[in-house]
Amino acid sequence: MEDFGGLQAALVGVPMDLGVTNRAGARNGPRAVRMVERIGPYNHALRVSPLSELRVADIGDVPFRSRYSLEQSIADIEAFFSRLHQAGVVPVAIGGDHSITYPILRALGREAPLGLVHIDAHCDTSGPLEGSRFHHGGPFRQAVLDGVLDPARTIQIGIRGPAEMLYEFSYVAGMSVIHAEEVDAMGIEAVIERARAVIGDLPFYLSFDVDALDPAFAPGTGTPEVGGLTPREAQRILRGLAGLPIIGGDVVEVAPQYDATSVTAQIGAQMAFEIISLVALAPR
Amino acid sequence: MEDFGGLQAALVGVPMDLGVTNRAGARNGPRAVRMVERIGPYNHALRVSPLSELRVADIGDVPFRSRYSLEQSIADIEAFFSRLHQAGVVPVAIGGDHSITYPILRALGREAPLGLVHIDAHCDTSGPLEGSRFHHGGPFRQAVLDGVLDPARTIQIGIRGPAEMLYEFSYVAGMSVIHAEEVDAMGIEAVIERARAVIGDLPFYLSFDVDALDPAFAPGTGTPEVGGLTPREAQRILRGLAGLPIIGGDVVEVAPQYDATSVTAQIGAQMAFEIISLVALAPR
Amino acid sequence: MEDFGGLQAALVGVPMDLGVTNRAGARNGPRAVRMVERIGPYNHALRVSPLSELRVADIGDVPFRSRYSLEQSIADIEAFFSRLHQAGVVPVAIGGDHSITYPILRALGREAPLGLVHIDAHCDTSGPLEGSRFHHGGPFRQAVLDGVLDPARTIQIGIRGPAEMLYEFSYVAGMSVIHAEEVDAMGIEAVIERARAVIGDLPFYLSFDVDALDPAFAPGTGTPEVGGLTPREAQRILRGLAGLPIIGGDVVEVAPQYDATSVTAQIGAQMAFEIISLVALAPR
Amino acid sequence: MEDFGGLQAALVGVPMDLGVTNRAGARNGPRAVRMVERIGPYNHALRVSPLSELRVADIGDVPFRSRYSLEQSIADIEAFFSRLHQAGVVPVAIGGDHSITYPILRALGREAPLGLVHIDAHCDTSGPLEGSRFHHGGPFRQAVLDGVLDPARTIQIGIRGPAEMLYEFSYVAGMSVIHAEEVDAMGIEAVIERARAVIGDLPFYLSFDVDALDPAFAPGTGTPEVGGLTPREAQRILRGLAGLPIIGGDVVEVAPQYDATSVTAQIGAQMAFEIISLVALAPR
Amino acid sequence: MEDFGGLQAALVGVPMDLGVTNRAGARNGPRAVRMVERIGPYNHALRVSPLSELRVADIGDVPFRSRYSLEQSIADIEAFFSRLHQAGVVPVAIGGDHSITYPILRALGREAPLGLVHIDAHCDTSGPLEGSRFHHGGPFRQAVLDGVLDPARTIQIGIRGPAEMLYEFSYVAGMSVIHAEEVDAMGIEAVIERARAVIGDLPFYLSFDVDALDPAFAPGTGTPEVGGLTPREAQRILRGLAGLPIIGGDVVEVAPQYDATSVTAQIGAQMAFEIISLVALAPR
Amino acid sequence: MEDFGGLQAALVGVPMDLGVTNRAGARNGPRAVRMVERIGPYNHALRVSPLSELRVADIGDVPFRSRYSLEQSIADIEAFFSRLHQAGVVPVAIGGDHSITYPILRALGREAPLGLVHIDAHCDTSGPLEGSRFHHGGPFRQAVLDGVLDPARTIQIGIRGPAEMLYEFSYVAGMSVIHAEEVDAMGIEAVIERARAVIGDLPFYLSFDVDALDPAFAPGTGTPEVGGLTPREAQRILRGLAGLPIIGGDVVEVAPQYDATSVTAQIGAQMAFEIISLVALAPR
Repeated sequence: MEDFGGLQAALVGVPMDLGVTNRAGARNGPRAVRMVERIGPYNHALRVSPLSELRVADIGDVPFRSRYSLEQSIADIEAFFSRLHQAGVVPVAIGGDHSITYPILRALGREAPLGLVHIDAHCDTSGPLEGSRFHHGGPFRQAVLDGVLDPARTIQIGIRGPAEMLYEFSYVAGMSVIHAEEVDAMGIEAVIERARAVIGDLPFYLSFDVDALDPAFAPGTGTPEVGGLTPREAQRILRGLAGLPIIGGDVVEVAPQYDATSVTAQIGAQMAFEIISLVALAPR
Repeated sequence: MEDFGGLQAALVGVPMDLGVTNRAGARNGPRAVRMVERIGPYNHALRVSPLSELRVADIGDVPFRSRYSLEQSIADIEAFFSRLHQAGVVPVAIGGDHSITYPILRALGREAPLGLVHIDAHCDTSGPLEGSRFHHGGPFRQAVLDGVLDPARTIQIGIRGPAEMLYEFSYVAGMSVIHAEEVDAMGIEAVIERARAVIGDLPFYLSFDVDALDPAFAPGTGTPEVGGLTPREAQRILRGLAGLPIIGGDVVEVAPQYDATSVTAQIGAQMAFEIISLVALAPR
Repeated sequence: MEDFGGLQAALVGVPMDLGVTNRAGARNGPRAVRMVERIGPYNHALRVSPLSELRVADIGDVPFRSRYSLEQSIADIEAFFSRLHQAGVVPVAIGGDHSITYPILRALGREAPLGLVHIDAHCDTSGPLEGSRFHHGGPFRQAVLDGVLDPARTIQIGIRGPAEMLYEFSYVAGMSVIHAEEVDAMGIEAVIERARAVIGDLPFYLSFDVDALDPAFAPGTGTPEVGGLTPREAQRILRGLAGLPIIGGDVVEVAPQYDATSVTAQIGAQMAFEIISLVALAPR
Repeated sequence: MEDFGGLQAALVGVPMDLGVTNRAGARNGPRAVRMVERIGPYNHALRVSPLSELRVADIGDVPFRSRYSLEQSIADIEAFFSRLHQAGVVPVAIGGDHSITYPILRALGREAPLGLVHIDAHCDTSGPLEGSRFHHGGPFRQAVLDGVLDPARTIQIGIRGPAEMLYEFSYVAGMSVIHAEEVDAMGIEAVIERARAVIGDLPFYLSFDVDALDPAFAPGTGTPEVGGLTPREAQRILRGLAGLPIIGGDVVEVAPQYDATSVTAQIGAQMAFEIISLVALAPR
Repeated sequence: MEDFGGLQAALVGVPMDLGVTNRAGARNGPRAVRMVERIGPYNHALRVSPLSELRVADIGDVPFRSRYSLEQSIADIEAFFSRLHQAGVVPVAIGGDHSITYPILRALGREAPLGLVHIDAHCDTSGPLEGSRFHHGGPFRQAVLDGVLDPARTIQIGIRGPAEMLYEFSYVAGMSVIHAEEVDAMGIEAVIERARAVIGDLPFYLSFDVDALDPAFAPGTGTPEVGGLTPREAQRILRGLAGLPIIGGDVVEVAPQYDATSVTAQIGAQMAFEIISLVALAPR
Repeated sequence: MEDFGGLQAALVGVPMDLGVTNRAGARNGPRAVRMVERIGPYNHALRVSPLSELRVADIGDVPFRSRYSLEQSIADIEAFFSRLHQAGVVPVAIGGDHSITYPILRALGREAPLGLVHIDAHCDTSGPLEGSRFHHGGPFRQAVLDGVLDPARTIQIGIRGPAEMLYEFSYVAGMSVIHAEEVDAMGIEAVIERARAVIGDLPFYLSFDVDALDPAFAPGTGTPEVGGLTPREAQRILRGLAGLPIIGGDVVEVAPQYDATSVTAQIGAQMAFEIISLVALAPR
């Protein structure tokens, strides 16, 4: 059986953005994140050096059959992550637009519906758009409908709500939604506590959309949304999940064409590093 | 009588920056703000969809007789906003440098001196400069002297004070001034409370200069000032004014030539949206 | 004896970056900081106009014998700052990479080991690298070993710890280290209190590396590190040192090639202004 | 019958780039070209003011059913241009990637195969790629195969030949190909003469891909190719076609994300203006 | 009598752009040109080291009474250049928009109408616009009407003609106009010959608007015009005037806000150097 | 004996810029050139597919012992290229600043002094500067003095001469120098003829400094010089050398920090491709 050289975790590029509704460009996200000169190697806040403690490697990009078909690309992603999952490799994906998360969840949630910590400006639970179920505004709805995501064990953090009418599914399905403006009142510690309560001690996936951050911290993205999280807040939330059974994660929507100062690529790389740190600290 | 098609509120571009003292460029502010791909439509924090609840439209730019005369431009602005005001249309202006606010206040404050929530790095209450009363550092002094602005009902928030000696008028006239460094100590809730107390329940105008924000959040402006507000703080302040009788507002000093990542245009557009939300929620 | 025209303080450019390990460019830092159109003149938070209260001037750049030798450059810097120090002029340096601080400390700490407030993402206390003791990752170790810096009176603030293994010297030597993630828990007031306690009332030097700030606030630097301080936090820390006997300071690692919006140059200039304000308020 | 208000010519945006193989972004081309502040109104070289002499207007963008399907988009473009063509309106399209030209040729060449002046770095006559016939590297092959383009009356100018093996169809089908390196030897006058001879006096279409130009003149494009034409050469070629029966044209592959100085948008707009000038001078 | 320290020539900044019709920003031209790291010192084509052979210095900017008045600024420029002219100093001005040339010509042409070599995309001989005679589209008309410029000894090179209807004055007054598209046919040598014939051996002024160049070579300008000269062509024309009695010159319309790669500032500086070379080689 | 896997040619990065006098940054040149998405694979002008016809690979960067020593780096480069040369591998280097060419010439010219085609704005034959013989302004003087470069078989093309006084050595030693302004008069064919005559049929090296090109085509470089070659001219010159015994080459001075549109990286990559094409066509 394929074992990917005995890797425990793998960084995977998913350079596909055929699912965007606003500004394209996230197909170049993996390239931009990989160009960041230096991240880590030590995570002082979590007291872990994940690259030493895990057998982890960058295994390159998902092989796509075609640049011209969103449907095929979705299938290609699921196929690739299924191979990783069956080999016991924990994947950390670099998107690509948020439509890539749906096939990843399908690959990882086959045995049992997953929990989810979803940090984003948007709930991404809307229905089909312009004839497609696979656009980047709806992956989490599809994942619930397919039975691979457990809405009761899903928390969405940083939501700004400009398109709240599209996200009714989040509420109907029973997801926990924490809007950006609620974070000030709650404080980050309460957010972490809530997330840990929602997830429990069962396997969960972590999806980080860089537009969760305020545009000053992540201008290089397709759908910037004023009033978002700061990097320190985002790092605290992720670090607050240490010790929980994470089984995969992603950083999506880095679009370097809009990132004149490269800060978005840098925070994308840092967040991938934080996720790998969580993987290193997860119970095995 | 002219009724602007029955509009209740109108977005108006005021592409004029002949009043700047430092870097020019805000004449292109309306163009940059209008280019923002997407803002709203729902304001989740305030539970309002202002574009559905108000008859509101972008009615284009103030027609100027000449690009070469600050004095004529000031007169042209007053004339245009007077027509809007007489027709009962609440204007939301996109500048332009801050000198545009003086003629707007003259148009709107004719019946009675207005209250003012002024969010800015600078008090903009200095006297004539280089022979001109109309420069962007003095609109609020002129408005008080003309009797269209009530200093006792004026609050200035976010002031950094590098030119405090120019702003003595604010104190002499009795305006409330909250410096940026005081915001940390007070907290945003206290700022809101103070603003509501100053304004009372009489009509007020809201003027938002993007240099109120820290330069990381609004680099595209003529007079950046380190140490400013964050977008979330600014949004909380504006949202804290919901329900008060706002009769107009503006977003000024967006200069896209210095805005390589477009974040200033985005926050300018978002702030205009917040102001329109306040108009939708004002008592009528 | 040379008296630099009776100056009490002097701004000095140190355009040298031969000590960098990652991205070069800080040699252009002085030029970029000087291009900032306007800073000050009044420091409202500290109630001081330092340029009026001090005899202070920009005296240009350190004269270097060669652009091609790190060792010679280190010697040239020490020689120049020794002349200033002997003339009783308090220097405020604009780097250049952080390797410039070692020779400055040698010049200023000759009589007695100095205290240090060091604001940075990195401790910069590592040993020789690739055959050089003078690189920008080790100035504070060298200064302690040379007896010009007192580690017990040294505090390092904003450290993110990605290379903690290189900075063991900080702990062994007895420096106080406050990591970025600790700032949230402590609060800025406690940081200030700690810094004042460490420094006491003996002379200290202040070194500000712009990578202490989050990359959104200072993208123009060679080694950006996600999760840093905000400008307001940094300003509060500096202002919290008012009244203490500062005998010099620097702002380093501004690299304008990566600063598309110029915000890094602006905050570099503002921080130099804050340091000069501290000099004006120091006991003489 | 639909007559588009009696227009003789129309500017049409075609914001679609699902056919690209390299860097995406041309979907924003129409927006960028329309933002150019000023072009014309007089074409001195041709002694014509086309906007006065023609009934011409910008009629907006092709309405697309979906952002997620290249096939549907190709069909939508053909449908829209068919309506224009049947109404006797000469279309000038702003792409979009080069895949848009195939459906336009289908719409315009229904009655008889068209002639073509094609200015580009690439022949764009390759076969299906990754399962799609509709990508931007093959529109002219498809058009010949569909019988709407006459290869004997087709000339391709500016070709650099890095992928010559993909373009064998051009030669087999009998198109005239002038490589960039041949232009130096021939001179522009000979290029014009050759183009006029190939076209004859029957209707032809003009397709201008901005990557025909050297990247210094058009950096904002997906597939830049060193060693291209200058703007003056390109203008001379177009102007050399004055008086011939042009029945439509396009400017494609403007990708503003890579156009930091906006020169690509400007030359895109100027070339559209040159094409409209040719329309004004065509026999009717 | 004022003698400016015995200077023979002087570089003068004229940071004023209140006369622009399109994009502002040229007020920052002098600052941008001065920031260029290095130009010259030897002009190999002309075999001259002008900075050694002339007593020449950068004497700073024209002192303006007000940033808010185009009329006053025009008067201030004339006053300053009159002082220079009376002191026998040959001025080389860095604009600023092209409106600055009118008052310079008034200062220099008082004794006798001047000849002019004018390199530009536009003739700048239009009448009053929006109530102002002083805008940047009309300086040469005003100068002729005031009797300080001799139209028969005026040649305008590089004109693209998009607004030819505004420039009828050039033809009526008898100026020589060489359009950009004529340069290809004539060749540069013929252009030089024509210019020398028009100027004769009487004093002339040289005005270089950077928009004479194609936008790829000078994107940082307010009114870019596709299809312009190359730097080598422009340099050849200027060098072709060596030995003629130049009595002043300018480089105008450098707007660094649109100059992401700084090439416009560089060519502005180089052209100023070429003009100073001509001054050094002029008969005295 | 080391044989580098039987390679016939190798692309080698030389990321070192400790030899610059003006703007640093070329140490990032190899990274930038490698990021170019696509060049070739076919060279239509030369009718060659060099990557198929040669055993050629990118073998990574020269390993440097230290980032802090120019002298050591020069030695490291010589050592590495000596190994390649002894293994019979033709190197194509990507710099780095021009100081890298001296040690490469030492490695390749050990058996017999080499011929040289040197395309550049500067002769780079000056003497020691600030105590260093190894700076980027003098490699060709050093190479002649060391007996590895034959000045009689050296041609320098594109020289602009602003520092002609530094380059007396070129003339004294008998090099052929073609200034940029001479290219217009001679024409490119004559330049090629001259180069072929100078080189003869003995081995030569080709050194391409991107500042040979006009800054519009190569803004991303440390010492831009107005009035340079066009890419088409440069390509014609290189292609004109086909069939001659090239034994190595380089592309130097690509500094991506100043290359906002990436055109410099693109032309750097294209020129490396042209050199590899020459290698494929050289007699073996």
